[in-house]
Amino acid sequence: MGGRGLRVNHGRGLPGWTISAEAPARYDVVVVEDVFDPANTALADTSAAAYPVTSRRFVVVDANVDRLHGRRIRAYLDHHGITDDPMVLPVAEERKTMATVAAVADAVGAFGIDRHQPIIAIGGGVLLDVVGVVASLYRRGTPYIRVPTTLVGLVDAGVGAKTGVNHGDHKNLFGAYHPPVAALLDRTLLATLDERHLVNGLAEVLKIALVRDAELFELIARDGAELVRDRFRTGGAEVLDRAVDGMLCELADNLWEHRLDRLVDFGHSISPVLEMKALPELLHGEAVAVDMALFTVVAARRGLLEPADRDRILDVLRATGLPVSHELLGPALLREGLAATTRHRGGRQRLPLPTGIGSAVFCDDVTEGELAVAAKELGELR
Amino acid sequence: MGGRGLRVNHGRGLPGWTISAEAPARYDVVVVEDVFDPANTALADTSAAAYPVTSRRFVVVDANVDRLHGRRIRAYLDHHGITDDPMVLPVAEERKTMATVAAVADAVGAFGIDRHQPIIAIGGGVLLDVVGVVASLYRRGTPYIRVPTTLVGLVDAGVGAKTGVNHGDHKNLFGAYHPPVAALLDRTLLATLDERHLVNGLAEVLKIALVRDAELFELIARDGAELVRDRFRTGGAEVLDRAVDGMLCELADNLWEHRLDRLVDFGHSISPVLEMKALPELLHGEAVAVDMALFTVVAARRGLLEPADRDRILDVLRATGLPVSHELLGPALLREGLAATTRHRGGRQRLPLPTGIGSAVFCDDVTEGELAVAAKELGELR
Ligand SMILES: NC(=O)c1ccc[n+]([C@@H]2O[C@H](COP(=O)([O-])OP(=O)(O)OC[C@H]3O[C@@H](n4cnc5c(N)ncnc54)[C@H](O)[C@@H]3O)[C@@H](O)[C@H]2O)c1
Ligand SMILES: NC(=O)c1ccc[n+]([C@@H]2O[C@H](COP(=O)([O-])OP(=O)(O)OC[C@H]3O[C@@H](n4cnc5c(N)ncnc54)[C@H](O)[C@@H]3O)[C@@H](O)[C@H]2O)c1
Repeated sequence: MGGRGLRVNHGRGLPGWTISAEAPARYDVVVVEDVFDPANTALADTSAAAYPVTSRRFVVVDANVDRLHGRRIRAYLDHHGITDDPMVLPVAEERKTMATVAAVADAVGAFGIDRHQPIIAIGGGVLLDVVGVVASLYRRGTPYIRVPTTLVGLVDAGVGAKTGVNHGDHKNLFGAYHPPVAALLDRTLLATLDERHLVNGLAEVLKIALVRDAELFELIARDGAELVRDRFRTGGAEVLDRAVDGMLCELADNLWEHRLDRLVDFGHSISPVLEMKALPELLHGEAVAVDMALFTVVAARRGLLEPADRDRILDVLRATGLPVSHELLGPALLREGLAATTRHRGGRQRLPLPTGIGSAVFCDDVTEGELAVAAKELGELR
Repeated sequence: MGGRGLRVNHGRGLPGWTISAEAPARYDVVVVEDVFDPANTALADTSAAAYPVTSRRFVVVDANVDRLHGRRIRAYLDHHGITDDPMVLPVAEERKTMATVAAVADAVGAFGIDRHQPIIAIGGGVLLDVVGVVASLYRRGTPYIRVPTTLVGLVDAGVGAKTGVNHGDHKNLFGAYHPPVAALLDRTLLATLDERHLVNGLAEVLKIALVRDAELFELIARDGAELVRDRFRTGGAEVLDRAVDGMLCELADNLWEHRLDRLVDFGHSISPVLEMKALPELLHGEAVAVDMALFTVVAARRGLLEPADRDRILDVLRATGLPVSHELLGPALLREGLAATTRHRGGRQRLPLPTGIGSAVFCDDVTEGELAVAAKELGELR
């Protein structure tokens, strides 16, 4: 937990103190089969390990998940003495706001929980992000457990340390690094997810594949359509395992993003602005796919990437069912997107550009003009 | 920055990963003379050290401070190229809310700052707490610099890691541990603070004195009235130095409050509920003083504290001009206050009780009845 306050001389005779300390963080990401089978004690046990005083918990469930899985979830929560009254939260990107955070926090306050009594969040990326912000703020940090129910949740929003809500048309402008105590990954929940949201999640899988795992890319290229059709039941385990492992390897030694050159920012450079401008038309992963396609073309135009690899990447994105271009991708949006990402990355672009399938480098000198030309080329290619 | 994600077996055959890492935190608390003298480069230099790309900063100033010191502050900010348009924020305990956080965040968004470009907060505890919450949330954590302008700010709200806003009638229910990059302490700003707020700040100084520094207690007993009259000009340096040093020694190895038995919680057990119920009548330090008096009587009734020490503590509180009792201190409030603090301290009371002047122990077994009797005794003593 670190050092002690120390009297120091701050130069030029200024007396004072320097405080230095380290906050430890530790969490588990666990692959679970059928998490809401009452006989499966993974969730109840994880929750009890975090706070053994009572099994009572404040639980938030995505409204669509409640509609589709509510009976089993409620039976589970009831059976394990967790709650008989989960909060049902309607979600949408447009509702990922501080107002929703306040509504959830009100409900936590009314329910009444002790410090260290974990909140349980069951839903897609939007619900996990909102409840994560609540947990980060409530009593200056309350533990929480994530049960992701979408593919984006399973491979990305569920497993990292980030939380966030939008503000005006700024994507994730408010949030915190507040890792959960645990994330429980159950791919059988994908049984009810529609095709478009599965494809949307594949965009984040392809992101990881493109920056570090060529084999994962080939798996998606080969089995993507079948995985979607089968809702990840049969061949899903290996793809999920590789995607999560890749993600966690990228995150684990940079949880608080003290380094801002992050390979996992591939696809997340101009897409935050695109996603918010196009709302509600584009899903998160769809905007990410357009961004990946754009910088793939930029990389090829710079000679960093072979034309054959460029075409292969664009083909697989398209074959997966993802968009690779968008009509909003004009000079104004590109300028705004580049400025926003530079601002967010501490004054430098730090743009990941692919140098092959499974590898990338960072660039700081991409111009608006270059992006505009690439966007035009992309529009014509399609 | 810590370890890496690792594949582990989570028992009973559950595959998965454990992520463990440490977030470092480091900040300076610096004693500065006349911080807004244009020739004094402490603030400009601290700010430049945090982010050398531009000197432009988003600055928030307490509206009363702006009224009283605005001309000098603006001249300073202008001279050092920091801003020509600080945000002026009217403060009050009733406005220490998420709504005010959102308003400040909107203004930060409109101003436009890069990640790592520190926000500068100039004001009392309320302003510092609000801007601290904004800084903790904005881009998941933006650096900020605190310039406290009240005695509470100089010895307490300005120097620790905590931020917070109220929610409903819950004191500081939302917040974060988000230490500033630096706090600059200039006691000459107290020249314009009224007597009541100076006395209010002395309550937090007495808190530190009572739990760990008998000499500081004697200094206040001897010079308290003169310090207030003189606005800390002449004899203030030593008292501030001892108070801040004591505070930081208590905080430094427990910045994130992983240990919940905190001596500096003395005076902060039932006072959060009292302060919110009595709003706007009682100031923060006044509610703290009533709480300290109550647990002083509890300690004496338990035989932990000599009657002579009890009387001396109550006498000095009174002589300082602080309240030692309050009409709201009935059974209902005491019950609610005890429950709230137990909840906040992870299910145990962890009540600091003085065992002498400058020392205290923790108790977990104080009853509502005991508090009610002590409150009655206190009402009669006065
Ligand atoms: N925190 C992070 O690190 C991180 C990472 C990636 C994405 N995100 C965020 O995640 C969000 C996108 O997440 P998402 O794609 O899961 O969107 P989402 O949460 O909106 O879920 C998509 C839709 O599926 C529904 N749904 C959820 N589970 C279902 C199920 N099992 N069966 C049927 N329907 C179900 C939801 O109600 C919703 O309508 C974005 O806001 C993005 O910014 C965050
Ligand atoms: N974060 C922490 O660790 C921590 C610690 C202690 C207290 N606090 C919080 O601090 C708040 C109390 O702080 P406070 O007592 O400074 O109250 P405050 O911020 O309300 O300031 C008191 C009054 O003095 C005015 N003022 C400020 N500086 C002045 C100056 N130099 N001259 C004249 N007037 C001036 C303010 O406008 C206000 O009207 C409470 O909300 C409390 O919870 C936080």
